[in-house]
Amino acid sequence: MTAHRIAAVELTPVAFKDLPLLNAVGVHEPYAIRTIVEIRTDEGLTGLGETYADSAHLGRLRRAADRIVGLDVWDINGLARAVAASLSGDTALSGDTALSGDATGGSGTAGMIATASTADRVLSPFEVACLDVQGKATGLPVATLLGGAVRDRVDFSAYLFYKWAGHPGSEPDRWGAALDPDGIVAQARRMIDEYGFSAIKLKGGVFEPDEEIEAIKALRAAFPDHPLRLDPNAAWSVPTSIRVGKELDGLVEYLEDPTAGIEGMAEVAREVSMPLATNMCVVSFADLDPGIRQNAVQVVLSDHHFWGGLRRSTLLAGICATFGTGLSMHSNSHLGISLAAMTHLAAATPNLTYACDTHWPWKDPAEDVIEPGALAFADGAVAVPTAPGLGVELDRDALGTLHEQYLACGITDRDDTGYMRRFDPAYERRTPRW
Amino acid sequence: MTAHRIAAVELTPVAFKDLPLLNAVGVHEPYAIRTIVEIRTDEGLTGLGETYADSAHLGRLRRAADRIVGLDVWDINGLARAVAASLSGDTALSGDTALSGDATGGSGTAGMIATASTADRVLSPFEVACLDVQGKATGLPVATLLGGAVRDRVDFSAYLFYKWAGHPGSEPDRWGAALDPDGIVAQARRMIDEYGFSAIKLKGGVFEPDEEIEAIKALRAAFPDHPLRLDPNAAWSVPTSIRVGKELDGLVEYLEDPTAGIEGMAEVAREVSMPLATNMCVVSFADLDPGIRQNAVQVVLSDHHFWGGLRRSTLLAGICATFGTGLSMHSNSHLGISLAAMTHLAAATPNLTYACDTHWPWKDPAEDVIEPGALAFADGAVAVPTAPGLGVELDRDALGTLHEQYLACGITDRDDTGYMRRFDPAYERRTPRW
Ligand SMILES: [Mg+2]
Ligand SMILES: [Mg+2]
Repeated sequence: MTAHRIAAVELTPVAFKDLPLLNAVGVHEPYAIRTIVEIRTDEGLTGLGETYADSAHLGRLRRAADRIVGLDVWDINGLARAVAASLSGDTALSGDTALSGDATGGSGTAGMIATASTADRVLSPFEVACLDVQGKATGLPVATLLGGAVRDRVDFSAYLFYKWAGHPGSEPDRWGAALDPDGIVAQARRMIDEYGFSAIKLKGGVFEPDEEIEAIKALRAAFPDHPLRLDPNAAWSVPTSIRVGKELDGLVEYLEDPTAGIEGMAEVAREVSMPLATNMCVVSFADLDPGIRQNAVQVVLSDHHFWGGLRRSTLLAGICATFGTGLSMHSNSHLGISLAAMTHLAAATPNLTYACDTHWPWKDPAEDVIEPGALAFADGAVAVPTAPGLGVELDRDALGTLHEQYLACGITDRDDTGYMRRFDPAYERRTPRW
Repeated sequence: MTAHRIAAVELTPVAFKDLPLLNAVGVHEPYAIRTIVEIRTDEGLTGLGETYADSAHLGRLRRAADRIVGLDVWDINGLARAVAASLSGDTALSGDTALSGDATGGSGTAGMIATASTADRVLSPFEVACLDVQGKATGLPVATLLGGAVRDRVDFSAYLFYKWAGHPGSEPDRWGAALDPDGIVAQARRMIDEYGFSAIKLKGGVFEPDEEIEAIKALRAAFPDHPLRLDPNAAWSVPTSIRVGKELDGLVEYLEDPTAGIEGMAEVAREVSMPLATNMCVVSFADLDPGIRQNAVQVVLSDHHFWGGLRRSTLLAGICATFGTGLSMHSNSHLGISLAAMTHLAAATPNLTYACDTHWPWKDPAEDVIEPGALAFADGAVAVPTAPGLGVELDRDALGTLHEQYLACGITDRDDTGYMRRFDPAYERRTPRW
């Protein structure tokens, strides 16, 4: 076998329908955008990756794509070097807010994106695609290449959102409104009935903290055995976080990003009983040293899209295991390539003991870029694909359709705040809000 | 390709001639012992590993060997589970001093071996052998499987020892005596002439600290451009370490294990200018949290033999990169399989910026278990093998000869202190000695 050199790289931005899900910085637009990465080797093997599609990120992906041609798909160190080289001299990097790592808008990590994590974001889809090729070349699933699956099914959580009945000006969508505790409980019941999830996450930061506490209490009453999580995306001050944390004592398995920043999280962590989780203050390898030294977070939400791909995510997992930090998994709106990659990674990560987040139920089941059948939910879990590589195949017609949709929808940067302002011009983005 | 199941595991203890090298706990015996691990798959592929041969370790290897039959060579997570299961109920584990991780005697890590690191020691040679098979199955060198070689040659250091002229009762050996600064400089000159090393390490802890400071000063005068290291293997108290550290200011690239324990090292680190390195106080993943939180060490000496094999050593490397800790590489007396594994690991580790330790020059060139030619030193470095797997082949006749030598020599546990006492019955093992 030996080398499999990258002969061509193709990037295709796509858009798929999204629902009006509310969060701390606004509301999801009618379409979510992603970039589909395909690499093709000299010998005709292909590999797939999926990542963000915000314009600055897409520009960086294009520059990196030019640099990686000729590399061996096994040379992940060389891939990382090539990506870093493609970014050198990128003057837009510092203070960059265009790359969203969270579900909270165009700059979901609130500007806390440093050069290092930008390189990891750009590296990620190419690394996933290389692992997909490695798997096809060896006949091995990606989970095996990552060290071996320790489970054959990966548990996901029911990811609840406050939401409008439908996008303004449109008919109500199939999920309808959820704007109070009863609405959230009904949403949870339906999602659990359909998917079988055994853990529940509520995206908060939308209403006054007391209303969200009531929603958690209502969920606890309705689902006494489901672990619960609340994620207000840093909408709260430190004192508010401490107060809410005390009121949620015994109710949640972890509280996710109640407040912004490592220092703030460390202050809250000292005062509340439950673990604090994050995908906002520890979002790159550079954040781990201060995060761990300050005991700011007890659970890190891994996400291969911004932690540099699958192998670097296993490094993150090893670091968490070494320092006694819990590990869960974060999600943005995504398609099937990402679900496959998340599932392989989770399967090969022994210390991933929480159910993973996924936005999957919010996606129109008719829309994806992969051929149907490879991935399915049963009892809240996805069976780990056993076919070589990621185990999913591109549906070229579907890719073309979603690319056309990308071109037609006009969205080139995610902007939850701007979309909210169209309907509520007085809406302001504020951290903390309460 | 798909699965390659382990059909058989063979363990062969071997002995090879060693020289009377002095250290903080005694002197090397006439033979060093190692265990050679061979795995064979259903399909007839073979993989090699090399590890310690002390009796308790050999017993654990045998129990683990029974458990791993049937596993896929790609399933490193499964391998680690099987090894851990084979050790459960091992009542000899706590306080175990039989597994040497250092060059300082039968219990070179001074009893600081916990259950976790014992599992990593037992896992290591099997993991290396599995990677060797993976490489042969895919046509890829082990460095490529570890993420890709970032260098095609790996630098090693001249590892100097105080030594007697020969073993008592024998003729002087080819290296002769080195018992003062002049002897050490002469040894360095010869070793550098023969191998081309561009860094120098002196094993200390043998004589009064002031004599060893003189040796370092003599080396500095004779080799003004060679980075120097001194390793007294925790022979010094904290105050002595601080005094010596201040006297060596500007003379050494790092000072290795001047004193015992994380707390002691942290105290010294606060008072001296040079980085402190260790293969004695941070020797397992469990030690990293306290070691890093207390800023006890600035350089960790990686060693795949006790850090759980090659992939877990890349995790250690990633942790060091993440926390800004330097990375070097430790060595015990070893044969060619270990040299190959060390070279592949070093090649695939971007942040390994120091020349690696090796005892190679002290080995009789006529003795090894691999066929000659695969590994050679030039300009102080070993070229990374490009053949599949480790790139070395077992020489069965040589293996048989060294196994006979193991049986004949009667050494089943390394005991530098006991050997010293044969010639100096008053010799005592003391930490600290000064
Ligand atoms: Mg979050
Ligand atoms: Mg040492």
